[in-house]
Amino acid sequence: MSEEVFKKVVSHCKEYGFVFTSSEIYDNGLGAVYDYGQNGVELKNNLRQYWWKFMVQMHDNIVGLDAAIFMHPKTWKASGHIDGFSDPMIDNKDSKKRYRADNLLEDKIAKYQKDGKTNKADELQNALDAALLANDLAQLKTLIEQHEIACPISGTRNWTDVRQFNLMFSTEMGAMAEDADKIYLRPETAQGIFVNFLNVQKSGRMKIPFGIAQTGKAFRNEIIARQFIMRMREFEQMEMQFFVRPGTQKKWFEYWKEARLKWHLALGFDKDSYRYHDHVKLAHYADAAVDIEFDFPFGFKEVEGIHSRTDFDLKSHQDLSGKKMQYFDADLDENGKPYGNYIPYVIETSIGLDRLFLYTLCASYKEEEVGEGDKKDTRVVLALPPILAPYKVAIFPLTKKDGLPEVARKIIDDLKFDYNCFYEEKDAIGKRYRRQDALGTPFCITVDHESLENQTVTIRYRDSMLQERIPIADIKSILDKAISWKDILSK
Amino acid sequence: MSEEVFKKVVSHCKEYGFVFTSSEIYDNGLGAVYDYGQNGVELKNNLRQYWWKFMVQMHDNIVGLDAAIFMHPKTWKASGHIDGFSDPMIDNKDSKKRYRADNLLEDKIAKYQKDGKTNKADELQNALDAALLANDLAQLKTLIEQHEIACPISGTRNWTDVRQFNLMFSTEMGAMAEDADKIYLRPETAQGIFVNFLNVQKSGRMKIPFGIAQTGKAFRNEIIARQFIMRMREFEQMEMQFFVRPGTQKKWFEYWKEARLKWHLALGFDKDSYRYHDHVKLAHYADAAVDIEFDFPFGFKEVEGIHSRTDFDLKSHQDLSGKKMQYFDADLDENGKPYGNYIPYVIETSIGLDRLFLYTLCASYKEEEVGEGDKKDTRVVLALPPILAPYKVAIFPLTKKDGLPEVARKIIDDLKFDYNCFYEEKDAIGKRYRRQDALGTPFCITVDHESLENQTVTIRYRDSMLQERIPIADIKSILDKAISWKDILSK
Repeated sequence: MSEEVFKKVVSHCKEYGFVFTSSEIYDNGLGAVYDYGQNGVELKNNLRQYWWKFMVQMHDNIVGLDAAIFMHPKTWKASGHIDGFSDPMIDNKDSKKRYRADNLLEDKIAKYQKDGKTNKADELQNALDAALLANDLAQLKTLIEQHEIACPISGTRNWTDVRQFNLMFSTEMGAMAEDADKIYLRPETAQGIFVNFLNVQKSGRMKIPFGIAQTGKAFRNEIIARQFIMRMREFEQMEMQFFVRPGTQKKWFEYWKEARLKWHLALGFDKDSYRYHDHVKLAHYADAAVDIEFDFPFGFKEVEGIHSRTDFDLKSHQDLSGKKMQYFDADLDENGKPYGNYIPYVIETSIGLDRLFLYTLCASYKEEEVGEGDKKDTRVVLALPPILAPYKVAIFPLTKKDGLPEVARKIIDDLKFDYNCFYEEKDAIGKRYRRQDALGTPFCITVDHESLENQTVTIRYRDSMLQERIPIADIKSILDKAISWKDILSK
Repeated sequence: MSEEVFKKVVSHCKEYGFVFTSSEIYDNGLGAVYDYGQNGVELKNNLRQYWWKFMVQMHDNIVGLDAAIFMHPKTWKASGHIDGFSDPMIDNKDSKKRYRADNLLEDKIAKYQKDGKTNKADELQNALDAALLANDLAQLKTLIEQHEIACPISGTRNWTDVRQFNLMFSTEMGAMAEDADKIYLRPETAQGIFVNFLNVQKSGRMKIPFGIAQTGKAFRNEIIARQFIMRMREFEQMEMQFFVRPGTQKKWFEYWKEARLKWHLALGFDKDSYRYHDHVKLAHYADAAVDIEFDFPFGFKEVEGIHSRTDFDLKSHQDLSGKKMQYFDADLDENGKPYGNYIPYVIETSIGLDRLFLYTLCASYKEEEVGEGDKKDTRVVLALPPILAPYKVAIFPLTKKDGLPEVARKIIDDLKFDYNCFYEEKDAIGKRYRRQDALGTPFCITVDHESLENQTVTIRYRDSMLQERIPIADIKSILDKAISWKDILSK
């Protein structure tokens, strides 16, 4: 898929009520924040449900959690976010504009490449990687000066030093100015799981290995937001922490690496659109990490990370809170003695719901030539897995009269408890079909005058565009067969 | 239910993984913020789903939305929250503590009542109501002085003036200190619907009357948080805005007033636990408003509001943004002319998911005497509607050996795609039953040695505690019959 088609996906999102720019009526909206429209929210809810059913309902050793966005500020001290969750920033003194130092250098590298200066590009890339690895802010500034990078606004090279800028949003809780607490909007959902480890383990009498899964909003004050809903300041994570006995983390890391890719593949999109990307530089808490990447129109990008986080988080929380984060393992080791007390190791699976939503749309969006001769036309269709489609079925009375709407309503009344149904009585049937194609609705049912005589309707299939005459009494079983969580969950 | 039983409900929440104090390991947790545990999250999700299915899936003229928490700051200028969303606060100069002025006076009224000084209590109540109605801050201070109210900390009456304190949390978005935008965490979800009115109406080709429904977090910097999850600083709203033709708002207000109470009653709890409470003092945007109150252990309190909001919000957004918030109504009036362009009126239904959760627990929590003589015992049971229960069924092999766990696992494998199943093989069966009672699990299935011979199991019903021998092959149809959205949605 080309960048050009991506633009079409983005405008499709607005035109068909999938994604809107947040508060668009004011100054063209808030930067890097988006709202999900009437069809987007259904698709997003279905994707979240797919994850939740797979993680929680299918595994009797994984339970859910819904921790608040607000957490005690010490949480972020322990996790390392207060000290280390920052980007290197530089200001131009003339334009007063601030930039990410590494982005300025990356743009320069891209320019060298475009100009055919491959050697210079490679040399700068290596120097940049080394400086980032060493967290050498002075060296970043030196590189900006050496390569004569100017501010795109002022055009000058009058730069400040490079400084670290924390990506967490902060606010003040409590009424009293003098003792209001500075708190943060969580930059990840994982810590809500770690601080509740003992609560869940004890109240649920969980035995290792076990997992805690959670979905929810996280917030990062990204300097540069790019590519639509790919990198937002407010986004939704779906994370699972799997607690294991120390020494077994490699085995479980491999297990989840495989299980998570299989989950993606069960969506039914092209398997060549996925690849693993091993982390070379590991985060401070990790002893192994891999990304699952998807082939977006703008290249392979991370959609999910599987991380072996060791005992870093639980240990940090134990140290800072003074509360023992230990588990007593009564299982017997090779010498016949209980493993006893330890701080569990953790395998994390962390997926961005918005990115999953975006790749689902990109992979489903199709423009197809249909018809022949004069009737040649292009149709836009979202070939979504039926279980994910915002509407499962649309019901059309052929005309607004002769009792056809009443028959259509009766069909909806039979289906609506199980399926989200769309009712439409305006426009020609062909036009109504096209509109449902664009929403990804897998089935359309048309009620016509024959329906009154013999209790049959026309069913039209989204992907094949085939139409069949079927008894009204058969509709439900056709839908039941085609739309089921079991199908996708047992793949 | 007494206050004493309420305490038991609160501790039940922690013991059985329904609700935990947020970041409890640090300084006993963050004030007025709570996390939902492994069973709480399931109950909460089920309640949210009940609302969503009723509002969106059952009404083909209501669609969903999922607007972000972050919104353009002008949103809150237009809505009136920047200027008017505040509490009257007063500081004691000696203790440096800040209080809500009206709360200090309410505490005094309660004290007068306790001391039998009914006249004084009534007199102060009237004076307080009048001062709040007139928004007379000086008069609030005068009352505090006249009634000689002292700071509970310092014991002195050395007070500042009463000032307004805004309840919105604010944060800074964007990297540049000099042009970072001050933004707010939304104090209500409704405005996300109003600013997207045109996006949804146009992309969904919605015809009036129609509704937009949304669930999501909202935040208020409450000074005094009370009664567990009843009043939190971070909470979840479920709101629906129903757009109607001006002049028809009274009819639709009555419609939703009735429809929403019916929705609560369909949960099956005592109908005397609910009542309407008409608003005497209307908010600046409303021409009618009513609360649905539930009889909590601490008295009748609001759980849902139905508000006739006129065209206040859409008009304010139109004025501030310069974008026309109009709808063209092609229907014909009594003179045969189209109604034409207008700003729609709005009926809002707004329910707090956390309060709904709390009353569901309070109404379901039962302590029952069971057994006789020496075996007399008390069991705690959550008599939840089966469709809301965190787990629908628990499967117990009688022993850990002889192949019984394998049979139990096989039963789960047949049910798990449709139902959240609990597996347990530890402890005596009676103890396992009690634990499921405490979680509200409607069915327990025990696999014993007879199961191996004739493919039957014992099913035990939560509410009646009756046990029956049934074929394994019948389990699914028994569950299907007892657990269905259709039952509750068609009441």
